[in-house]
This record gives sequence, structure tokens and C-alpha cells, in this order.
Amino acid sequence: MADPVKNVLICGAGMSATDLIFYMLEHAEEFNWTVTVGDIDVETATRKIGGHPRGKAVYFDCYDNNIMEQHIKDSDIVISLLPPGMHAATAKIALRHDAHVVTASYASQEMIDMHEEARKKDLTFLNELGADPGIDHMSGMRSIDSIRGKGGELTSFESYCGSLIAPKSNDNPWEYKFTWSPMNVILAGSTGACYYEDGNLRCVPYHRLFENPKKIEIPGFRDFEAYENRDSVSFRKKYGLEDIPTFIRATLRYPGFCEAWNLLIKLGLTANNYPIDDSENMTYRDWVSSYLPRGNVNLENRLADHLEIKRNGELHKKLLWTGLLSERPITRNYGTPAEILLDLLLDKLKFKKGDTDMLVFYERIRYRLNGELREHVSHLVTRGIDHEHTAISRTVGLPAAIGAKLILNGSVKSRGILYPWTHEVYQPVLDELAEFGIAYSSSDTLLEDSVADF
Amino acid sequence: MADPVKNVLICGAGMSATDLIFYMLEHAEEFNWTVTVGDIDVETATRKIGGHPRGKAVYFDCYDNNIMEQHIKDSDIVISLLPPGMHAATAKIALRHDAHVVTASYASQEMIDMHEEARKKDLTFLNELGADPGIDHMSGMRSIDSIRGKGGELTSFESYCGSLIAPKSNDNPWEYKFTWSPMNVILAGSTGACYYEDGNLRCVPYHRLFENPKKIEIPGFRDFEAYENRDSVSFRKKYGLEDIPTFIRATLRYPGFCEAWNLLIKLGLTANNYPIDDSENMTYRDWVSSYLPRGNVNLENRLADHLEIKRNGELHKKLLWTGLLSERPITRNYGTPAEILLDLLLDKLKFKKGDTDMLVFYERIRYRLNGELREHVSHLVTRGIDHEHTAISRTVGLPAAIGAKLILNGSVKSRGILYPWTHEVYQPVLDELAEFGIAYSSSDTLLEDSVADF
Repeated sequence: MADPVKNVLICGAGMSATDLIFYMLEHAEEFNWTVTVGDIDVETATRKIGGHPRGKAVYFDCYDNNIMEQHIKDSDIVISLLPPGMHAATAKIALRHDAHVVTASYASQEMIDMHEEARKKDLTFLNELGADPGIDHMSGMRSIDSIRGKGGELTSFESYCGSLIAPKSNDNPWEYKFTWSPMNVILAGSTGACYYEDGNLRCVPYHRLFENPKKIEIPGFRDFEAYENRDSVSFRKKYGLEDIPTFIRATLRYPGFCEAWNLLIKLGLTANNYPIDDSENMTYRDWVSSYLPRGNVNLENRLADHLEIKRNGELHKKLLWTGLLSERPITRNYGTPAEILLDLLLDKLKFKKGDTDMLVFYERIRYRLNGELREHVSHLVTRGIDHEHTAISRTVGLPAAIGAKLILNGSVKSRGILYPWTHEVYQPVLDELAEFGIAYSSSDTLLEDSVADF
Repeated sequence: MADPVKNVLICGAGMSATDLIFYMLEHAEEFNWTVTVGDIDVETATRKIGGHPRGKAVYFDCYDNNIMEQHIKDSDIVISLLPPGMHAATAKIALRHDAHVVTASYASQEMIDMHEEARKKDLTFLNELGADPGIDHMSGMRSIDSIRGKGGELTSFESYCGSLIAPKSNDNPWEYKFTWSPMNVILAGSTGACYYEDGNLRCVPYHRLFENPKKIEIPGFRDFEAYENRDSVSFRKKYGLEDIPTFIRATLRYPGFCEAWNLLIKLGLTANNYPIDDSENMTYRDWVSSYLPRGNVNLENRLADHLEIKRNGELHKKLLWTGLLSERPITRNYGTPAEILLDLLLDKLKFKKGDTDMLVFYERIRYRLNGELREHVSHLVTRGIDHEHTAISRTVGLPAAIGAKLILNGSVKSRGILYPWTHEVYQPVLDELAEFGIAYSSSDTLLEDSVADF
């Protein structure tokens, strides 16, 4: 007997959705799915469906409740790649119409609050199943479970991830391109960060977060630097490591990025909480000069002096390369500093046709076992295949797609709000990702066998 | 013939509402008003009404649309002293039920967008009619109109206001108490500020806003310091001074406050965009230490060293006086840094029974007239009468009350969104405020008659 038909709705057909759409269509016949792809840009959705007989592109505006309802009401599962703020609204409609939900974003409080209702309706709302959050959670928990299974006691857990440009396309002074949501890059870190280190809670405010990035050397690969993610503290508990002395989740960049980005923060150009009046009558030079002290030396040197960096030095050149002090007109009116900065950098840091992106995951765990202190290290590097099948699309979309399949075919049985750090989810998803070549390399070494108190 | 009865609804019976309630009740008989005072704390509303036959206290929860609607629907005018974010929701209901609106807060975009609808329904939504915004707008525009009336050309407009503790109650090292919304004090300045100076747009990010306060000497009174308000730029236009080289609106504090407050900002303790997990299991000492580098010297000295201030110096003592490094337990769980800081300072900077507050307004305008450069300076200082009839209650509540009266008795005829910098509003309100002793002293002096380019 054939499976009854199941309707899959994918909300969002953007950069991260390509491989998700491909995967769902590829399995549509086998599992008797229909795959509806909704986006405000129907053309992109249509193109990505590529005429597949089980696929359908629809106009989907996540700010229009009627349209959302119209498409969600007949779905068995909704996979949401909408902006993070829109998942809860989507899930609320799904709840009314008995549809499961999968997202690749952090679960908001509003989402978490739907747990009981979803459970009662026999629905699974599976969150944080993308790249980061997602793959990092799954690998981390697999490693934790494995070490604990051997009787090990964890003393330190560090997890790093970066969406970067592949070395061959790394051709600008910032060594960075917008391989994922540009606005999220501009605002990254703006809440500051909290984490645990050697038993101490550490908090870093935004204006110091990029100041002293940590050097991260991935053995046999290359060097990176990292700044800590927003909220490592709550994940300590979620991972069941309440008492672990060190627990850090962080973001990777190529060396040198953070120090330069910190200058934009210090200038005040990443603020997103007030609009600049009349910005469209200014050039970037006018605008940036308003953040600099007045003086007799030229603006370029005033910028360097104000930021206490060397005139004509590398950092100074990096800043000027962006066009911050150029006569380029600002096109956006009443934009926030962050939005105005975004418009400038969109061109400069553009992920261009022919460019290849790269996702890097790195995990370092220390633990005691049989009187020894050991270190487990694993990393995963995956590069994009082409400009559509990017590393970000694969690492965000494939986990979400596999998660959706597992719910639809009954392999994932937990109901209510669910996360990928449960064995039921991480084991089959990581196994299947490995078939796509998305797999970690690990090593486990003896650090010391006489350290009393690490 | 008696006036037909008019129903006045006052939303909010807190600290700033006392004199508003008194004024409306005092004139209720004369103008045939009923005065309903709504608050979630009905007891306070009842007490402030004091058994007046035309007054009624009702339970009013501005987060409950049904309750709001129930009370607004029979009102002729709604005077909202609700939290700033709630005015637009109130106005929307008022629009449906044909009620005028008065607020003492900045008009939000949502409010501004109601202009046409309000105008069509013959309603006046009068905003920014309190102390600051309010009295500052009215005095400023009266001065501007007067100078222009003489043919003067303004070159500089500066307006300062502070809600402060009166000198006789100024008895803590910070020389500050919570005479108005404590949370607004904690978050003050967090959007940074933009203003115009000598023809240049100046923008200051939050982490630098309190660094170098401007010294303000009010002639014949005393010295203050000032940090710039959020958005002076848009008011340049609103006041009709599009091309004025210098335009600054700013906030006054006693000297020394800003430098100390800046240390709290630098530490990261005023951030309001992320919660501290498990905060209720910490002491203030635990919490603040998480923001400090580790080291061997004691925490008190590490605090001083990290902030680059003198150990045991005045600033260091000011910080420690707050109890930041005390073993006091944090009571709030999952609070933001700003909320946790608020809980600490609420006690320390409490406006106590017996304390007197003080509002200080200061305005400095430079202009050219007949080849001379002249300076117009005016200031207004008003102290509270007692712990209820505070300066803040009088300067916020009386303008709003008088504004409401002017709408109800037909003196203010403009419809739609209205502001107090129009002659129709500022002239009668300032005139009546003077009867309450709330009046400016002004001077006008010749600065120079040979300055070519000021």
C-alpha cells in the first residue's frame, strides 16, 4: 500500500533554501509528498523547483496572515526558513491546522511556550536544525554522549562555527564576504556574550566583544579567530553540562577580521536603534565625518587618530577600502547606521558568481577518564559546490530536510518543541549528512595524566 | 446654558499624574467634566481623586484591549500617561470612538500616521505636551518666534532640561535620585545622539555619549553638565530651523554624574538586550565579576584597573557605594543587565519621603540682528511642593491638563496630530503655567558686533 500523500510547505526560497528544496523534491515520489515552495519572489521559487511534477511555487508573504493561513492549512509539515522573528507566527498557524514545523533558527520564548499545545495535538516543532544552530548541536551532543558513555567527565566544551569564503575566493582585504544574511553579519554580537570559563561566568559587552578575538588553530587546516556567541550559558544546561567549568560557543572568522570590525563598532556605525534623518542627502564621507572629532588634519587621518590606529597602516587601509570616506551618496533615507553601513558593504563584500563559500565547524572537548586528562577535537569543513549549492545552503538546508523527513516517516516520535541535541534526532541526521560528505574528522589525545586541577 | 457634560479619561495615576488629576478635578465643575482615572493600581487612583464627586477610579490595564476599549469608548478626551509604547494603541481606540488624545511623550511613527484619520474625524491628538518634551518645546518656539519677529536670524539653538534632586535633598555621592521613571534613567542615551554643531552633523554612539559631558553654567544659579538627547536633528526641521548651524537638545545632570555613569555603560551593565541566565543564584559581586578580567588583585582593585580609574579615588568610591561588588543576592531571575542594575540602584538612588525634586530648563539662543551677534538665555527652575506634588508631576501634568482643557473648550482648533510648538498651543499653556509659578527668566545680551562668521 502506498503512503498517503503528505503535503510539505517550504517557507522561503532564498540563499539557504536551495538544497532543502532539492532534497524534498528528490524524495517526493518515494514518500508520496507534494512540495509547495512559498516566497515573495515566486520566480526564484519556480526556478528552484525546476518543473518538478510534485513541486509548486506560490506567492508567500510572511507578513500577511491570510496568505500564510491559506498555504499552511493544507500542509502536513511546514519547514520555515523565514526571518527568525517569523517562526513563532508560522508555528501558531501550524498549530491550528495540525502541521508539524521544522526551523533552522534558535527557538524563541514564544515558540518554546507552544510545547504543551503542540504535544497535545501530536505535533513536533523541531527547531535549531540547520548549520549553526544545528550541525554544531548534533556533533557536540554526539561527542558528549560518547565521552560520557565511556565514563568520562567533561571539564571543557568549546564549539566554533563560521560561514566563510573559501580560500580560493578570499580576495578582499577583510577576507570576508556575505555568504549568509548580510544584516545578521552587520548586527552580529550586538547583544554581547556570556559564557563559562574555568568555572567563572564571563560576560562581554558588545563594544568589547570583537576587541580580543581568540586564536583558533584547526590542526592540519589553518588558523582562525573567534568571538563568543550571545548566550552560551543556557546551552550549558540544555546539553546537560550544568557544572562544566568551561563552556563556550563562538563564531569563526579569518584572522584580522575582528580587529577591523571592532573599529566600525567603536565608530558607532553598526547601531540599529535610531534612524539618521535626511541620510539620503549625504555622502558616506559626510555621514562618517559626523562621528569623528573636528580638527585640522584631513578626514582620513582624523579617522585613524580617533580610532588610535596607525595612519596608512593595514587597519586604516582596510577601513578606507570600504568607501567609508568616499563621496558615494547614501541612497537610503531615514536609515539606521547599520542599514546605511549595510548598503555600503553589500557591494564591497558581495558573494559573487564564481565565488565559493565554506562552512567550518570546530569542537574541542576536554575530559577526565581513568585519571587522565584527554582532549577530543573534531572539525568539519565543507565547501560550496557552486553559486546555488553553497556550503551554507547545504549545511542549513540538508539537516532541516532530513529532520522533516524523519518526522514525516515516523522515525522521530517525540512531540512538542524538540531540538537536535536529542539522540533520536542527531544520530540519523548526522548519519545521513555523512552520505553527503558532510562529516567531522576527530582525534582524541592524551593531554596529561598528572594534572590535579584543570 | 450649561456646557454639555464631557468625559475625561486619565490613563495612568503614577508619579507624574498627581497634578494632572488635581487640575482636571479642580476644573470639573466649571466645565462640566467627569474625570475617570484608570490605573492597574486602583487604590492609588482612588487616593489621588480624594472622594471628589466628579472623579472615578477604575481598573485600567493598558495591555488588555477590552478594558481599554470599555473605558475609552465613552470618553471625549483621553490623557495618556501610559508607558511611551502604549500611546499609539490608546490613540487607535480613541480614533474609533471619537475621543481626542493628549500625551506627554514623543509622538511615535504609528501616532504620526494617524494624522489624516484623526483630522477627518475632527479629532486632535496633541503629543509631547509634558516637561521635556513639552515645556522645552513651548519656550523654545516662543523664543524663536519672538527673535524672528524682530527680524533676527538664528545661528544657534540649545535647549537643556533635567529632572534632578533639589539641592537640599542632594545627599548621595551620585547627586542623583530617581525622580522619574527609573528604567528610563538606566536606559537613557542608549540610542546615542545626533545633533548639529557649527553646520556639521555630529553623531555620538552610546558608549561615548557620557564620556565628555558639556559644562553648562546657568548664570546666577549653579553649574551642571549635559549629554545630548537622542535625536536633535529632526527637531531642527520641526522648529522650522532647517539651516541653523547649531541645534542641540540635551539633558542636564549635576557635575560628575556622567563620568561615573559612563563606567556602568563601559562595564556593560546597562545593556537591555539579553537576559542573564540563572541570575537569581548570584550575588551582585558574582555578577559584576563576570565582566571583569581575571587576575590576582582583589576584585575592588580589578574593577578600578579595568576601568582605568584611580583605586580608592572618587569615581571608584562612587561605584562601590552602589553595592555593585557587595554580596547582596540578585533577586530577579533571567533579568537583563539593565534590570539587574535597576534593582540595585532603586534602593540606593531612591527618591524618599521628605525629598524634594527639581526641574531645570535652560535655553541658549544666538542670533544676528542689525549686524550684531546677540545671545538670548532663559532658564526655569521649579522645585516640588511635597512628595506627591513633585516638580516632575507639576511640569509633566499641568501642561497636559491645560492642553486637554484647551481642546475641550474649543480654544485649540487644529485637528489631527498636533504638537506644542505651535503658537495656538504654546501661548495659552505657557501663560497659564506662569500662574502656577512655572515661568522662565530671560536675558538678552550683545555678544559681539564684529564677528563675521560665528
